Amino acid sequence: MFSTSLNLPHVMRNGDQSVTTVKVGDALFGGEKVVLISGPCAVESPEQIELCARLVKEAGGSVLRGGIFKPRTSPYSFQGLGFEALKMLRNAADRVGLAIVTEVMNAEHVEKLEPVVDMIQIGSRNMQNFDLLKTVGKSSKPVMLKRGMSATLEELLNAAEYIMSNGNQNIVICERGIRTFDDFSRNTFDLAIIPMLKGLVRVPVIADPSHATGNRDLVIPVSKAAIAAGADGVMVEMHPDPEKALSDGAQSLYPEQLVTLSDGIEKIATAVERKF
Amino acid sequence: MFSTSLNLPHVMRNGDQSVTTVKVGDALFGGEKVVLISGPCAVESPEQIELCARLVKEAGGSVLRGGIFKPRTSPYSFQGLGFEALKMLRNAADRVGLAIVTEVMNAEHVEKLEPVVDMIQIGSRNMQNFDLLKTVGKSSKPVMLKRGMSATLEELLNAAEYIMSNGNQNIVICERGIRTFDDFSRNTFDLAIIPMLKGLVRVPVIADPSHATGNRDLVIPVSKAAIAAGADGVMVEMHPDPEKALSDGAQSLYPEQLVTLSDGIEKIATAVERKF
Amino acid sequence: MFSTSLNLPHVMRNGDQSVTTVKVGDALFGGEKVVLISGPCAVESPEQIELCARLVKEAGGSVLRGGIFKPRTSPYSFQGLGFEALKMLRNAADRVGLAIVTEVMNAEHVEKLEPVVDMIQIGSRNMQNFDLLKTVGKSSKPVMLKRGMSATLEELLNAAEYIMSNGNQNIVICERGIRTFDDFSRNTFDLAIIPMLKGLVRVPVIADPSHATGNRDLVIPVSKAAIAAGADGVMVEMHPDPEKALSDGAQSLYPEQLVTLSDGIEKIATAVERKF
Amino acid sequence: MFSTSLNLPHVMRNGDQSVTTVKVGDALFGGEKVVLISGPCAVESPEQIELCARLVKEAGGSVLRGGIFKPRTSPYSFQGLGFEALKMLRNAADRVGLAIVTEVMNAEHVEKLEPVVDMIQIGSRNMQNFDLLKTVGKSSKPVMLKRGMSATLEELLNAAEYIMSNGNQNIVICERGIRTFDDFSRNTFDLAIIPMLKGLVRVPVIADPSHATGNRDLVIPVSKAAIAAGADGVMVEMHPDPEKALSDGAQSLYPEQLVTLSDGIEKIATAVERKF
Repeated sequence: MFSTSLNLPHVMRNGDQSVTTVKVGDALFGGEKVVLISGPCAVESPEQIELCARLVKEAGGSVLRGGIFKPRTSPYSFQGLGFEALKMLRNAADRVGLAIVTEVMNAEHVEKLEPVVDMIQIGSRNMQNFDLLKTVGKSSKPVMLKRGMSATLEELLNAAEYIMSNGNQNIVICERGIRTFDDFSRNTFDLAIIPMLKGLVRVPVIADPSHATGNRDLVIPVSKAAIAAGADGVMVEMHPDPEKALSDGAQSLYPEQLVTLSDGIEKIATAVERKF
Repeated sequence: MFSTSLNLPHVMRNGDQSVTTVKVGDALFGGEKVVLISGPCAVESPEQIELCARLVKEAGGSVLRGGIFKPRTSPYSFQGLGFEALKMLRNAADRVGLAIVTEVMNAEHVEKLEPVVDMIQIGSRNMQNFDLLKTVGKSSKPVMLKRGMSATLEELLNAAEYIMSNGNQNIVICERGIRTFDDFSRNTFDLAIIPMLKGLVRVPVIADPSHATGNRDLVIPVSKAAIAAGADGVMVEMHPDPEKALSDGAQSLYPEQLVTLSDGIEKIATAVERKF
Repeated sequence: MFSTSLNLPHVMRNGDQSVTTVKVGDALFGGEKVVLISGPCAVESPEQIELCARLVKEAGGSVLRGGIFKPRTSPYSFQGLGFEALKMLRNAADRVGLAIVTEVMNAEHVEKLEPVVDMIQIGSRNMQNFDLLKTVGKSSKPVMLKRGMSATLEELLNAAEYIMSNGNQNIVICERGIRTFDDFSRNTFDLAIIPMLKGLVRVPVIADPSHATGNRDLVIPVSKAAIAAGADGVMVEMHPDPEKALSDGAQSLYPEQLVTLSDGIEKIATAVERKF
Repeated sequence: MFSTSLNLPHVMRNGDQSVTTVKVGDALFGGEKVVLISGPCAVESPEQIELCARLVKEAGGSVLRGGIFKPRTSPYSFQGLGFEALKMLRNAADRVGLAIVTEVMNAEHVEKLEPVVDMIQIGSRNMQNFDLLKTVGKSSKPVMLKRGMSATLEELLNAAEYIMSNGNQNIVICERGIRTFDDFSRNTFDLAIIPMLKGLVRVPVIADPSHATGNRDLVIPVSKAAIAAGADGVMVEMHPDPEKALSDGAQSLYPEQLVTLSDGIEKIATAVERKF
């Protein structure tokens, strides 16, 4: 069943059952341990991101996320603090011993991010920004490739191939929900693509239940489901004070929920013979 | 987050956190134990359904499924063996001690099924067949209500209310995949609706990963995910010899896969403090 | 391009370019003249439906529509006046010389409708109610088959084949919008399926812009577009006083809009070498 | 009905019923005459594009389209001839007196295209490439903004606002089909968004039936429908020899179809009191 006529030599297994692992700081995507990436939607201040870093570390996370440039639907919404925020993110992570990942929105920024970050994120809206894919394909940093909101499996695999065929094999694919008629959640989390990808591709696969659902109360069960289905990790948004978040507040976990999540992931990981 | 402005007094909790359980033979939906329903897409012969019943029983299942009238896209496809198959299904289940569930396709059939079956299934295509909903709402038998292929949460809740407001409180809601642009699987399994429903409704919620994916190799991970997300059970198609199945062969588990599934469900159930 | 591997001998042309016409009262679907069906969502009273009939007649319509049993999402919404309304509909139409079409919601009602109506409508939610399709397939009355909200072309063609293979060749297929992520209109009007169907099937094809858009201000341009693309007619909802309609008020045309629509259709019909 | 709570002062009418027109060469989008843009998917050679230019001119087109960098799903597909093709496009257009439009794929290319092209196209995959939107928002050249494959109306309006709030008021919005479950056509042409946009925005609105359908035999009826619904023009792909096209052959019109299209558009334009 896990077969297709696609000929994408870099991303697809083609019979090879070995697992490529991707190392990001202390985290090893695709290894025995499942990885928790967490942090706020956007870096808002040194205090906010430092508090986030500490909470993520305490909850067992190994990578800190935080947006510095935010792709926002409206030109009048908060657009992120820019490169100033990058320093805050790096400092906060270093203080507690976390790796960092942040989204790159255009090819020109790649060289500015490279010396600072541990992992570069390609956001959903850029999954088919082919020039950006080629640029990060030439980078030495690991890349997290998020699925586009309406990307088919074939398009997702091809986007990965754009990066890998340009030289960068260190990629992690992230399912983050697709756009459907469903209106109870922000997007529809496409759980089944996780085992499908695990059967087809060489690279690790994780899930982003925060953007998939847009609803913090769904993030914990969806995260557990992702791990049960074989995901190599999850990325979830949290905020010390979600009601005051400048963006994505409704989907950001409260600090105590992050601890509950961590506990839940550990139990499911054990049930599928993995660790956390 | 689990709130809505809908006023559906029968199906929605409205603050009441107690769990309604639905008893079907030895199975108790909504109780501590998660329930496994399994069997072939269609009853094909006494031998086939008896073999299925034995395999389902051995794998820890408690309800045997099997179609007697099949809703088929084409008028020229196999349409099921009809009421003759109902006897076969009943006999096979009785021999090993399983309850049975089968789909009803029109209101006239309800009274013929009632004395024989333990649970009546409303299929996806009939989720808004309002006359049929009213009819089973007056039945004394438990009802499994499958979500329509393009039903919103609100429509699904209202369909349940149609049944319950007519008197029948013994219903189980089943997520079975929705229609989206995704083309790698038969439908898109909407995992997040499971915790959403568990938060909103009084009645048990299960998943059907077979119709959701249409691909037997996805059924096991998706089933585990459903239980991890809080589902009260799963319904999966199996066949003693899937290549020879008269319908739905590609999504039917091999007998040995059913055993693997059962083992996987048990581990996940334990991880979420339930049993199997 | 208008080819497919489907083998559906009744509904598909298979190279035969002749047009099957369907006669309903004075209307001839599939002929040179495009047909206007109009009327309220539901028959509400003798006065309401008589006023509608007169307005439809004056606007050049030839078939009066009006629901007697209404398929409603909620069990607590207005469900139609039932067979009492059928008499009102018939009387109103007879007084001004229109044919009538009304929706049938279950197989048992077919024989009660047959002696009274000129055309039986299968609603979207019942496009795959296969027992109902078989029943109207044995009827002597023309059938309007509305596309299901998430029906593929293949499923729509097969639904038509269910009817025609049971003996009834007098069917008209109606595109009425599909369910997508789009949220500015009630459904997404799938304009391109009209020329696709016209290329593939023997039977007439019409459009229902009212349910497709759910917005009366979109009904006129969408109707004109449908005729421009080759539709054999349109069915639109109108109401003498839309603000007071018991259902579907927002998509019901004001009486003066019906006249504007009629004028617009006539001009487009002429531009595509048809008449009105 | 044409109301929304969005506050986007540049793109939305807010009660102002005047029409902004956008001049591109001899074409005036939003004026009395509907505009025909046509040409090949990609510029393939001087001979090919010159032949296209002549055919487009003869069919009454006023803008020549042609890709120089092609966004392709696969990294191994033909990616366009690059800036070399830009010269060919310009020369071919100049020889017969047409304006040109071509797609820009990244912000760095904008300044290279600006001196040469008459209109810059933002492709569907880049509708939310916000840095690119800001860059063309500072350009002096008119912009054609294509709707993203899964963009809501709100997202589309905001994308336009990104451009306009950066200074460039000369934009034309183009509906080009959305991604749905439908599988008979490449995308689903969302006809109803045309009158919706015409009611809401100040700027001209056109349609691209080629990408919407992916099927040349649907392009003519869909184009006529778009004009009937109020579009200010259409953009269609054509090729002197579609079977040999390096990309998008199946949706490219044969030269004789372009003439038929032109004739059809003229008749419909007249029927809606416009010209061609």
